[in-house]
Formats: sequence, structure tokens, C-alpha cells
Amino acid sequence: MNETLGAVSLGNDRCRFRVWAPLHANVEVHLLSPDRLIPLSAKPNGYHEGEIDGVPAGTLYFFRLSNGLDRPDPASRHQPAGVHGPSEIVALDFSWTADDWRGIPLRDHIFYELHVGTFTTEGTFDAAIGRLDDLVELGITAVELMPIAQFPGSRNWGYDGAYPYAVQSSYGGPSGLARFVDACHARGLAVVLDVVYNHLGPEGTYLADFGPYFTNRYHNDWAASLNFDGPGSDAVRDYFLRNAFYWLCDLRIDALRLDAVNFIQDGTPKHFLEELGEAVEAERSRMRRPIYLIAELLMNDPKYCRPRSQFGYGMDAQWCDDFHHALHARLTGERQGYYQDFGSLTAFAQALQRGYFFTGQPSRYRQRRHGRAPTGIKPDQLVVYAQNHDQIGNRMQGERLATMLPFEALKLVAAATILSPNLPLLFMGEEYGETRPFPFFISHGDPALIEAVRLGRKCEFAHFNWAGEPPDPQNEETFRSAKLQWKFRAGGDHETLWKYYQYLLQLRKFVTQGDVREIRVECLEEANVIVLSRKHGREQTCLVLHFGSTTNRFDLGFTGVWYELLNSNDVRWRGHEVETSKRKEFTLSTWVEMVPYQALLLGSLPLEAM
Amino acid sequence: MNETLGAVSLGNDRCRFRVWAPLHANVEVHLLSPDRLIPLSAKPNGYHEGEIDGVPAGTLYFFRLSNGLDRPDPASRHQPAGVHGPSEIVALDFSWTADDWRGIPLRDHIFYELHVGTFTTEGTFDAAIGRLDDLVELGITAVELMPIAQFPGSRNWGYDGAYPYAVQSSYGGPSGLARFVDACHARGLAVVLDVVYNHLGPEGTYLADFGPYFTNRYHNDWAASLNFDGPGSDAVRDYFLRNAFYWLCDLRIDALRLDAVNFIQDGTPKHFLEELGEAVEAERSRMRRPIYLIAELLMNDPKYCRPRSQFGYGMDAQWCDDFHHALHARLTGERQGYYQDFGSLTAFAQALQRGYFFTGQPSRYRQRRHGRAPTGIKPDQLVVYAQNHDQIGNRMQGERLATMLPFEALKLVAAATILSPNLPLLFMGEEYGETRPFPFFISHGDPALIEAVRLGRKCEFAHFNWAGEPPDPQNEETFRSAKLQWKFRAGGDHETLWKYYQYLLQLRKFVTQGDVREIRVECLEEANVIVLSRKHGREQTCLVLHFGSTTNRFDLGFTGVWYELLNSNDVRWRGHEVETSKRKEFTLSTWVEMVPYQALLLGSLPLEAM
Repeated sequence: MNETLGAVSLGNDRCRFRVWAPLHANVEVHLLSPDRLIPLSAKPNGYHEGEIDGVPAGTLYFFRLSNGLDRPDPASRHQPAGVHGPSEIVALDFSWTADDWRGIPLRDHIFYELHVGTFTTEGTFDAAIGRLDDLVELGITAVELMPIAQFPGSRNWGYDGAYPYAVQSSYGGPSGLARFVDACHARGLAVVLDVVYNHLGPEGTYLADFGPYFTNRYHNDWAASLNFDGPGSDAVRDYFLRNAFYWLCDLRIDALRLDAVNFIQDGTPKHFLEELGEAVEAERSRMRRPIYLIAELLMNDPKYCRPRSQFGYGMDAQWCDDFHHALHARLTGERQGYYQDFGSLTAFAQALQRGYFFTGQPSRYRQRRHGRAPTGIKPDQLVVYAQNHDQIGNRMQGERLATMLPFEALKLVAAATILSPNLPLLFMGEEYGETRPFPFFISHGDPALIEAVRLGRKCEFAHFNWAGEPPDPQNEETFRSAKLQWKFRAGGDHETLWKYYQYLLQLRKFVTQGDVREIRVECLEEANVIVLSRKHGREQTCLVLHFGSTTNRFDLGFTGVWYELLNSNDVRWRGHEVETSKRKEFTLSTWVEMVPYQALLLGSLPLEAM
Repeated sequence: MNETLGAVSLGNDRCRFRVWAPLHANVEVHLLSPDRLIPLSAKPNGYHEGEIDGVPAGTLYFFRLSNGLDRPDPASRHQPAGVHGPSEIVALDFSWTADDWRGIPLRDHIFYELHVGTFTTEGTFDAAIGRLDDLVELGITAVELMPIAQFPGSRNWGYDGAYPYAVQSSYGGPSGLARFVDACHARGLAVVLDVVYNHLGPEGTYLADFGPYFTNRYHNDWAASLNFDGPGSDAVRDYFLRNAFYWLCDLRIDALRLDAVNFIQDGTPKHFLEELGEAVEAERSRMRRPIYLIAELLMNDPKYCRPRSQFGYGMDAQWCDDFHHALHARLTGERQGYYQDFGSLTAFAQALQRGYFFTGQPSRYRQRRHGRAPTGIKPDQLVVYAQNHDQIGNRMQGERLATMLPFEALKLVAAATILSPNLPLLFMGEEYGETRPFPFFISHGDPALIEAVRLGRKCEFAHFNWAGEPPDPQNEETFRSAKLQWKFRAGGDHETLWKYYQYLLQLRKFVTQGDVREIRVECLEEANVIVLSRKHGREQTCLVLHFGSTTNRFDLGFTGVWYELLNSNDVRWRGHEVETSKRKEFTLSTWVEMVPYQALLLGSLPLEAM
């Protein structure tokens, strides 16, 4: 990794420039103030490079191509005037304070996904820092940022990023991110960054003017596919490989969440993700903190997480939607779109037991068989969630579970997610039952593109037969409606739910501690109950989840002495059972009675002794 | 495999029809004579089926779709009036005579690729049968047929087949193929069939009228991509899976050569080829002869042949172009197109040693890194050739090596190919130095398509900077010019070359027999020599290939007692050395002298004793 890309400040106002522009015999750096044109040297394989003096951090520049066009740097570190403006030279001279941060193992993480623009009123990294202590208090271990690569305008989920190396200027730019990461590390929080290597936002992308970054050999749902396997692809792969290390090393990000990896289409014998996995593995030994790669993967394909020694790509973990869809469909009763494949309690039980629900059986939604058995993948390599940006935001109105389910069911959802054998992820605001929506929003500048996005959203919802119209994504009000209200100190259900999440996150440590063997999931379909039992060393825990909306008496099928570690019906959580709050020892009879949506965690020892 | 596709004769003029047509609520069978319309029953997943009486073999029919269109059967077994005409009911009542055929192991095969239309003057299976004894006499073990699926007109390489289940009517239809296969088996010859599962010929394909057989999610060089992974793909996969078994079981084909497998684009977790490999593996135990799958693969990607236990697709073998390109570029001096990556002797030595020459290094032609180390693949899983239909026919004039290289070099080429550690394939006529070309030819009916093909050929050759114009592929004369002349009994170089090939094929048995360990390839670049040594049990052989065009004296670097098993300069092969024809024992000094293009095979024992 000795060859840099973009403009790299060398100190003393000297800067090294390097760009891949194989379509051009000559490339110049066009400095804007004072106006200067400085030629770069053409190097093999289409690269152009040079070092220039008198260019302090903050200097604005374009690359001038041989056809006379001025274009922003493909590896621009900052676009202070947006995607169409000049690039800015950034000095990587941030004074890190949290140098003793050593990270924690992936399997111990609780992810908290947030969108910088709507996480706070101000929508900046600096404002977000002000909320970190709340997350620590809650029990979060990793903050997961939705994409922050420079996108058009100031309102975007982030998946329209056009500059993979530039931190969104309206969020605070690269220095803002550095402050945020440092503040996280100082509090013992890891930072996961969502990066998009499957397309670039359609507005403000000038890479095609430089070289064959894109290809038409594959269809892509969002924009042109990236060229990972055609002529010139070595440089394109290098561009994204270095991007990963820019975040992991220079900005001290702890893990990357790789967006929609099945659209990283690569027909070569070594898939880009395998190459990336190998490079990260090699780098790990040199770093004082662990770094991880997490794939967003909707294919239920174990090759992504399988070790490279077993011919996999060696991703550390993957997102898995089956847990969500099974839980959501069961509790909301929704059966539209992809929910049509879910709804049975068995589906959720199988997702809990095997990680993947779909392991090759026919999917009505996909109109084909789907998935494959997750051979060689451990439960704690699967990130699960009851809500995330997609599952909320890709609803027509962007509504959250808090506005769709009774309070008791929210507590069931929380217990199912946080006490699952997988890696739980919460979506910002979930922890206190935020009622504001998280709709899709953009602030593009291109009227035709805006219309296309509006139409695209409507088409996407056509699968779901929802009534009404989606909010206009381009309208600033849509963006504003998504801002968190931070009601967790407000008392009532919000505060109770927050404390309940906090308690569950403490409880999770006990449930996942040590050598968890024999995870067994039983589905009592008639009783509407799922029982998840685990052996931890010599002890056992048993999570009982009641999905029924009426009180239900049923045969749990096991006896012995158990201690109640959690009871969602405890008055502490605005339930109705007083005595159980005392954690008294009780002998479980074969028959139990559970109120609607009740969740119980039983242990073979009391919490204090575990 | 209980569900049939197409029209399957049940005897007593009763026939079962089954078609996948998910775009239609109703499908009828339209019998042509007498004119009758018989409705089929709609079944789950878009299938329509029914049994009809009074339809003897030979009955012509269309499927009538719900929009009133008459269309040939997608799984038609015979299109007697061509791709646009009706389908014909075929009775699979051929009386097989070669019932004691048990096949031979893949590693013992010598493939002989032939094109039915130009193999004989008549261009039929029956005429081809008349040549089989010559192939047996030569030492061939497997006849490999270029694709025979019904294509437009009567002249085509076969890759424009529009009916994967129909045997080209002008070749003799399904009964002609059965007679041919039976005649091969009766002579101890296996039959390999080239099948195209990566596209269908653009003319005469009506599958899109039935359902989503095609997809635009992937680019394909030749036509629409087939839908192996989108909605409806289960049925498309089933269509091709059954096709494989139609050939392997019903028509008793011994192996399939799967054309250009990298264009079988399948993003699901179980690639179609893996599924096919698994199905073939399961069927093997039930068959009395071995069946094999051989992939044409230009990607140098070991996952195709790696066992499924190691997460590969489990193909039995693959074609590998590197051997050809390295040999061809070295001997012809050509450096255009893909030959620009080859030409050094080292390249050929590495192809011989490792199977793949490209294992990840940059390719100038591909403008990217290419290939991966063939870990887990044995040399005898790679099919190699000095000529094949593509390497001859994709030259502008379709000329063969016999018109490009001196006679001595042809003998070198033959020794290198036949005595290689890989599985050799000869292209029809190569064995006697046929001088006629094998240009690309078609006989389409669609004028626009004809023009597109003409233009496409010119564009393909643009890479090579060849002077002149290619012959018109649509002109019947182009097709006629490719017909073999069968000069191997004519005396002169033709007859000598034929006998030399025959001798080499006998010799190969000794070279590959037993447990071949330690294949070592040495490249003496200055001497223009490659030495391939093998240990066979306690004995050794040593193939010395001299690529120089002048006589060369050089230090071979080893001594001891060796026996000359082959000397291409023997007078027997129109060379100049008389005494060596006596197979006398000789002690090899460190220095040897070799005439231009001389090939020697030395053994630690005389041939009689090996």
C-alpha cells in the first residue's frame, strides 16, 4: 500500500498527487487560487503523478484532463462546495487522543446504526458526539454510521455518495469524522462505517471521464455497475481497496459494513471481497486494534463469510434479513412484498436456530429457490435486527415498529433481538421507541434524477400494495420528519423501554459469556411460543418468547429449578407482575401462563451467581 | 427426474406433453394433421401438461399460447422443417446394439473434435459413421461433436442452436444421432457432445414467448443471457438440467463439453454447474458407463473443477487455452490479439508444468490481472490442443497450422500435445495435416442478423490487425471450403503425419500409464528447448522438444542410459536419421544436437520393456 491516490499532504505545504486516468495522455493539476496549471507525469498503466510545493491544506483544485475539462479528484478527501465543486487538499494532522483504544472482539459487539444528518437536530458529527455518553450508558459497543461519502446536497441516506474518499462536508468533513471517531474511542465505542462499493451515486460522479471505472456487463439496480473484472479493473479494485484502508487506517474506523455485496459483481477467479479480506487479514497483525469486514448480504450465501482456507471470501460477519422478516411478519401480520415468505412462527424459530431461514427452499417473493445452508458460519457472524434503516425507510411512510405494535410487543422484539445468538443491531431511536418515521430522502440537484427517484420509490412500493402516497423524498420536510426526538428521559413508555433495553444489554453479556454450546430452539406453534435454550459451561439459560396477543397457558415441557433473569411483564417494565421483580427462586411446573407478548429469561442460577 | 419436458411418446400413439409457460393461463397443443387443438392442464409454477392419444411418432405440432400464437416446443426433440417450423413427436425406440459398452476412464481419453457438417462430403451422422474405423485405427478414444442442437438453416458451427433438445435435422435428426452414438460405442469410442447453456441462437428462439427464460441482468457476447438466477429461474435451470440428462441417458452420450461456462451467469449460492455436477454424480452410480462434464473455461479459475467437497463445482475437466496460445505464439511468431501475452518458451513451459500459465499476473490483452493458481486440479483434468474449432476458425481466413508451419514443426506440435500431461484433443483433419481452412459459416434466414454477424466477425478480427477481408460467413462456398479432404492415404507428408500421430497415440499410453509422479518441466530458453520428465513407477521418460528453426547443439544437463522411444527426425517420419529407427540403446552425453523442431522421447527402458 505504498502508492497513494488523490492529493496527499506531505507537510511543509508540499503535496503528492496521483490519479488513474488511462483515457488521457496528460493530466494537469488546476489550482484555483492563485490560478495555476501544473502538469503531472504520465506513469505506466494510466496513472499520472507528481509532487507540488506551495499547496497548503485547504487549497482547492481540479484535475484538468487532456480534453480540457476540469474535474474533481476521484479520490478527493473533501468536497467543500459539494459534488460538482473543486476538491480540497486535506492535511491528515488530526491529534488523536484515544491512543489507548484497543477495540473489542466482534462477537461482543452491540451495533447502533445511526444516520448523522437525522441523529441530532444539527445533523453533524460534532452534535453526534454530544449523544455518545447516552449510548455508552445504554450499553452500546459499536456505533455504525450510515454512509458518509460526499453525496449531492445535504440530505441523503448516503447511498448516493459520489466520492468514496470524501467525508460529507455538511456533516463536518474529514476533520469532523476524525473528532467523532476519536470521541467514540475515548468512550470505549468502536466505529463501523457503511461503505458502498457496488455503485456510485448517479449525480456528481465524474469518474467515467477518467477511465473505465464503470461497466455495462452487469445490471445494477441503482446506477452503472463498477468495473471489477473488465479491462482496467486492476486500478478500479485498487481504488476501492485503498479506500477501505483509508477508513480503517487513516480515519481509525474499526469495521466496514459493505453495502449490498451481491452487486459487487466480479467474474474473476479472486473476487474483490476475497482480495479485500486477504488484505485486511494481512494488515491486522500490524494494528493494535482489531479491524473487521461485515457484508450486507441478501443472498443467504455462506461463501462470503466462509474462511478463505475453505475457499470463502473470509468476511468476518454478514447482515441477515431472515431474522427480521420472520419476526416482523409474525408480529405485524404483514404479508406483502418479501413478507409473503414469512409469518409462521417456525420461520422465526429456524432463523434463530440456523441463522438462515432460506436454505434453498422456494421463495414465493423471489419466484425461485433461495439460499443455501450456512455451513461453516457461526451464529455470531450474523448481524440481526428488528429494525434498520432499510426495513423502516423502505416502507412507504417510513414508520417504525413503535407506531405499529403494542408496547408489550416492542419488549418482546427487544428481547428476541438482544438475547439472540447473533450480533444485535439497533437502529437509532429504537431503544426508546422513537415514533418519528425514517423515510427516504434526497437533495439532488438534477431535476430529471429527482423525478426518477420519486418514480422509483413508487415502483418499489408497488410490491406491497400500500395505500396512499410516499412522502416526497426531495422535500426538506421529509428529511426533517426523520430527526430523532430523544424522548428517553421523558418518562412513560419511552423511558421504560430505554431502561428495559439497557437491562437487556447487560443481560446479554451473561447469555453470551463463556463457551456457549448447544443452542437449541424449540417452536411450540400452537402455544405461539419459542424457547431458546443454551448451555453456558455447566449452567443453562432459557429464553421463552410468547408471540400470542392473548394470555396463554401451555405446557412448557420441562421442569426443575429455574431463576427468572428477565420478565417483560414485571412492573419494572410497566407490566403487571410485582413479585417476580424480586428474582425469587421458583420451581417451574410443566404448565406456565404467559400474558400477551411476554418474554422470560430463565437461568439455572440467579443472575448474581452466573 | 420424473417430470418430463416436451412431447414424450408413451407408446401406442399416446404422448405426454409438458411445457413451462408461466406467461399463459392456458396452453393448447395444436396438432397439424389433421388439425386439432387440445388443451393442456395448468399446473403449479407455470407448467402445463396433458396426455393425448392418437399422436404417433412423426406427428407435427405447435403449442398454441393464450395470445393465439403458435410456437414450436421449447423442448422439441425434432424440427424437421427448421427452427421456425412445427415440432415433431419422436419415439425413443432406437434399437441399441452396443449394449456392452462400458466406457473408459476420463484420464485415458484422446478427444477428436469434429463438425458433422464438414467432417464428410455428405455432412450427416450416417456419413460420419463411415469414418469411425479410421479414427479407431488412429487411436482416438472419444469423438467430440460440435453442437448439434437445431440451428437456422443447414450450415452453422452449432453455437446458434435455438432448440437445445432437437438434433439438427440436416445432420439426420435424433435417430441419426442415435445410430452414430451406437456405432461409436460398438467400436469402443466414447461420444462427447458440445452443449451451449450460456445463450440460445438469436434466430428461431421463441422461448421468450413462453416465460422468463432470458434476462437482461447480465451482458452476453452472443445473445440474451439465460435466466439462471432471477424470478422463474428454477424452471430454466430444470430445462437445462434435464437437457443434460436427455443427452447422457436417452441418447447415451458419454460426456458433455459445456460451452463458455463463464457466461452461465448465476448469482445464487449454488451455481447451476454445481447443481448439474451434483446431479450427474448422483446418476453415475446408477449407470453402467462413466459420464463426465467438461467445461470450456477461459478464466483460469480452479473453482469449476475443484471437488464439491472443497466448495468447487466438481466439473471433471476443463478446456485450457494457455497451452494452445503459448505453443501457437512461440511457433508462428504471431503476437496479435491474445497472442500478445505469449511467445516466450517459458510461457509454454509453465503451461505444461502448472496447467495454467496465467495464475494472477497482468495480461496485456485483457488489461488486467488474469487467472489464479490451479490449486487442487490435476494435469489430466485439463483438455489441451494445438488446434480446435475456435483457434482455427476464429482466424480471419480460418487457416490451419498445416498451412502455416513447416512439416517438422507440425511433428513438434503433435508430440507436445499428445505426450503432454494433459488430456489431448485433436481437431478433425489435424492428424493428416488437412490444408483446407475451417472458417466461420452460417446460413441464417434473417437479413439483419446476417449483416450483424458479418460485421461482428470483422470487429473480432480488428484486434489482430490481419490484412484482407474474411470470407463471407453466409456464403455456402465458405462452408464448402471447410469440408475435409481425407488425404491420409494419399502418401507424402499427409500419410506420414497420420502414421506419426498414430504412433504418438500408442506412445501416449506408455507415457501416461501407471502412477505418474513427479512431472518436471525444464525450460532451456537459450537452447530453445523444453524438457518434460516424468517418473512412472521405477522408470522415467523424458520428452525433449526443440523449438529452434536451426540445428542446435546444447547441454541437456543429464547423463545415463536412455532409450529413444521417439525421434521426429527419424526417416520413418520423413526425417534424416536412419540408425535411430532401430531403437538402439544409447548413452546420452551431456551435449546433444537437435535439428529444427525436433522432438525426442527418451525412456529409461526400451519401449518393449516399459
